[in-house]
Amino acid sequence: MSCFVYIALSLDGQIARADGGLDWLETVPNPDGSDFGFAEFLSRVDALLMGRATFEKVLSFGEWPYSLPVFVASSTLQGVPEALSGKAEILSGTAEEMRAALQARGYENLYIDGGRLIQNFLKADLIDELILTRFPILLGEGIPLFSALPAPLPFEHVETELIANMLTKSRYVRKRSQGVVLTV
Amino acid sequence: MSCFVYIALSLDGQIARADGGLDWLETVPNPDGSDFGFAEFLSRVDALLMGRATFEKVLSFGEWPYSLPVFVASSTLQGVPEALSGKAEILSGTAEEMRAALQARGYENLYIDGGRLIQNFLKADLIDELILTRFPILLGEGIPLFSALPAPLPFEHVETELIANMLTKSRYVRKRSQGVVLTV
Repeated sequence: MSCFVYIALSLDGQIARADGGLDWLETVPNPDGSDFGFAEFLSRVDALLMGRATFEKVLSFGEWPYSLPVFVASSTLQGVPEALSGKAEILSGTAEEMRAALQARGYENLYIDGGRLIQNFLKADLIDELILTRFPILLGEGIPLFSALPAPLPFEHVETELIANMLTKSRYVRKRSQGVVLTV
Repeated sequence: MSCFVYIALSLDGQIARADGGLDWLETVPNPDGSDFGFAEFLSRVDALLMGRATFEKVLSFGEWPYSLPVFVASSTLQGVPEALSGKAEILSGTAEEMRAALQARGYENLYIDGGRLIQNFLKADLIDELILTRFPILLGEGIPLFSALPAPLPFEHVETELIANMLTKSRYVRKRSQGVVLTV
């Protein structure tokens, strides 16, 4: 099972203003209405696990934007709004436990979304691929994507794409030390 | 006068390990001994202003690597080692004051180096160009490049270069609102 992060962030690593504001993401000239590769990314994953705060942010948008199965990581939410029955459900536990639960249900490629959830997955070294789109702004304060880790995590750069002559979208794959293959 | 930052950082925005360690920067395959554009950058600046901690780090390398005039921002250091007389001198004051002092001495393009000094220059909105080389690693802890700002600072993306199929080197220019030109 592989876990993916696909997220936009400022040069100083914030994913939102301190109040959750995302207005700074809406500054990209986009005359052709491109999704900048998001649909192609979604075709690589079979479920989305998001944090509770991200879920509430998405609910505030009004329309439910996802056609893939969505799981909301929360130990407090009792359930999802009725309109989302069959589209989203609540999951609780540690990053390891939630990953194992989704693996047991047959999912193979998880899209992990939301600052705190991503941090928990990184702390457990469960992120296999990072797709980071950098906006050319220093926010100065806000909600950071990254936090302290028990140990450094090396990645391998796969590709970088320039979007709208303004954003860099870089794809990184977790570089794990080669395990020894034992032939018994 | 323009102020430049040219620095390497991790994906999570650290410029050194918590103990100042830079070993993670030494992982780039470089068979041709390339300087990855550093000499070309140095040809664009006429003085280097560095923080005290960075100065002490450079001193620990043994050999003095700079041929341009170097100023060390410090309110505590009394002077530089005798071997550096004529090569480096101490400067004190706020970011604005140090910038003004160097401008008064005829310098036009300043290379600003060192985490805390860069943060002070960014807080005063005195950085005109950021050249950021991202290493594909999450350090998890260390010395961060960026800190809180009084207000967000938008930049314009100029170019991104891929180095050794591993690092992204992006150049950003501060995007300042167009001042009104008054014709009297």
